[in-house]
Amino acid sequence: MLQLEAQSLEMRIPQATKTAVMVIGGAEDKVHGREILHTFFSRSGAVDAHIAIIPSASREPGIIGARYTSIFGEMGAQKIETLDIREREQCEDPAIRACLENCTGVFLTGGDQLRLCGVLADTSVMEIIRQRVQKGQLTLAGTSAGAAVMGHHMIAGGGSGESPNRSLVDMATGLGILPKVIVDQHFQNRNRMARLISAIAAHPDRLGIGIDEDTCAMVEGDGWLQVMGKGTVTIVDPGDACYTNQSDIGANDPISLHNLRLHILSHGDRYHLHQRNVLAPVHQLPS
Amino acid sequence: MLQLEAQSLEMRIPQATKTAVMVIGGAEDKVHGREILHTFFSRSGAVDAHIAIIPSASREPGIIGARYTSIFGEMGAQKIETLDIREREQCEDPAIRACLENCTGVFLTGGDQLRLCGVLADTSVMEIIRQRVQKGQLTLAGTSAGAAVMGHHMIAGGGSGESPNRSLVDMATGLGILPKVIVDQHFQNRNRMARLISAIAAHPDRLGIGIDEDTCAMVEGDGWLQVMGKGTVTIVDPGDACYTNQSDIGANDPISLHNLRLHILSHGDRYHLHQRNVLAPVHQLPS
Repeated sequence: MLQLEAQSLEMRIPQATKTAVMVIGGAEDKVHGREILHTFFSRSGAVDAHIAIIPSASREPGIIGARYTSIFGEMGAQKIETLDIREREQCEDPAIRACLENCTGVFLTGGDQLRLCGVLADTSVMEIIRQRVQKGQLTLAGTSAGAAVMGHHMIAGGGSGESPNRSLVDMATGLGILPKVIVDQHFQNRNRMARLISAIAAHPDRLGIGIDEDTCAMVEGDGWLQVMGKGTVTIVDPGDACYTNQSDIGANDPISLHNLRLHILSHGDRYHLHQRNVLAPVHQLPS
Repeated sequence: MLQLEAQSLEMRIPQATKTAVMVIGGAEDKVHGREILHTFFSRSGAVDAHIAIIPSASREPGIIGARYTSIFGEMGAQKIETLDIREREQCEDPAIRACLENCTGVFLTGGDQLRLCGVLADTSVMEIIRQRVQKGQLTLAGTSAGAAVMGHHMIAGGGSGESPNRSLVDMATGLGILPKVIVDQHFQNRNRMARLISAIAAHPDRLGIGIDEDTCAMVEGDGWLQVMGKGTVTIVDPGDACYTNQSDIGANDPISLHNLRLHILSHGDRYHLHQRNVLAPVHQLPS
C-alpha cells in the first residue's frame, strides 16, 4: 500500500529530463530504428521537447532542416524550429535568441564545420547554447560537421592513406562545448586514424575521440561518455605520452608519438572524459 | 701509438656481420637511396654477401627475382641466387637446401602471403632458415607478403573503412619467425588500423605491428626493433588490455577492446619486442 502510494506520487511528478551532449559520427539512421535520433528526442523532453535545428553547416539548410523537422515531428516533439542562420548578424535576431533561450534540444546538422563555426563562433547565440548546456538545461546534439565543432581544437579537414604527418590534418578553432577533446567523425568509415593521431601529436594536452558513422558518444553532465549505435568510438589518450618529434620535423615527415592509451568502445561501453577510465557494459562483466 | 696498433689490429680482423630480421612494409625504394635494401645487403655481409631471393609469393617469380638480383648485384654482392620454389616438393632439392645452408641473407619478396606459406610452411627448407636466423647466421628480410608471414598468426587478407569487427580480417598461420607478433604491411597507406585491431582482439596475447610502405622494422637478436625508412611503424600492444567482447559478438558486430598501448614510431625510434618499451633517437632526447 505504501509502495503503491509512492508509485502514484512518482507518476504525478514528471522526472526532470537528463540532458546530454550527443556527438554523432555522421550518417545516423534516419529511417529504421533511429536509435540515436530517438535518444536525442527523449533527452530533449520527448513529447514535451522544443527542438531547435541549426542547419548552418549545410549548403542546403532548407532541405536538411525539413528532413530533421519531419523526423522529430513523427516522434511527437511538441515544437520544432529550424534556425536558418546564414550570416553572423542573424545571431542578434530576437526571435532566434528567444528560441534558444527556451528550447530543450539543439541539433547541429552535417555539412562543413568551417561554415558552421564561421557563423556561430563567438556570437551571443553560441554563448546562450554553451551556458544552457553547462547548466543542464539543454540537450545538444551534433552530427558529422556538427560533431567536429565540439572541441576547442577542431579538425577542419585532412587526408588518409599516409603515415601520420603534420600536413595530413588541417586544424581550426571549434565551438568549444567539450573543450578538452578533439573529435573526428566518419572515423573508421573514412580511415581517419592517421589524421586524428596527427592532430593529437600537435595537441597532446587534449583527448582524441573518433566516432564511426551511425554511432554516438553521449556525454553526461558528470563526464561519463556512453557509446550507442552501430560502430565504434575510438579513444586516443595521450595522457601518458612520453615523446613526440612533432615540433622538430617537416610538414610531410612521419610523426613519432610514443605511449598513447587506445580504447576501442562499442555499444554500451562507457568512458569517463576526466578520469580517463573505461567501463564495459555491466551485463558483460565477469559474474 | 698503442691506439694506432689497436686500430690496425681491428682493421685486420673482419667484424662479424650483425644479422637481423627485417620486416618491410612493401614498396621499398628500389631506385634512389635504397636505404632499406642497402641495409639488408650490409647486414648480409656487404660485398661478401651470399643472398638467396625467394620469390614464391609472387605470380611472376622470374621477373621479381631478376629485379632484386639486379639491385643486390649493383650493390656488389658476391653471390645471388633466386630460389624459384613453386611446389613444396622442391624444398627437398639438395641444391636449394645447400644454398640456404650457406647463404648469409634471405629475401622474401611480395605477392600473396598464402601462396608463400603454402609452399614453405613446415618444410625442411623453412626449418633451415628458422634455425640459422635464431643462431644469428643469417639476415632474413621480407617485404609486403614476405613481411606478413613473420608471425605465427598471419593476416591473410581483410578490408578497411569499417568499424573493427571479426569479419574485417582473415587470419591464417604464418611462418613463425617472430611468433609473438602479428604483422600488417602497407599499413597507413592502405588504412589497415581497423583490421590490425580486429586481429589483436582475437589474439590479445600477441603484439600488433603495422608497417608503412618504404619502411622497415629491423629486429636485432636482442629483441630491439629499430625503424628505418620513410613512414611509421605502429605498435598495438594489448599487454594491459582489460576487456574485449570479441568472443561474444557476431562476425559483423563492432569490437570493444579496452586499454591498449599504442606507439607511433618513425625513423630511428627503437622498441623492445619483449620488454615492450620504446626509445626515441638519442639525438632527440632532452639535453
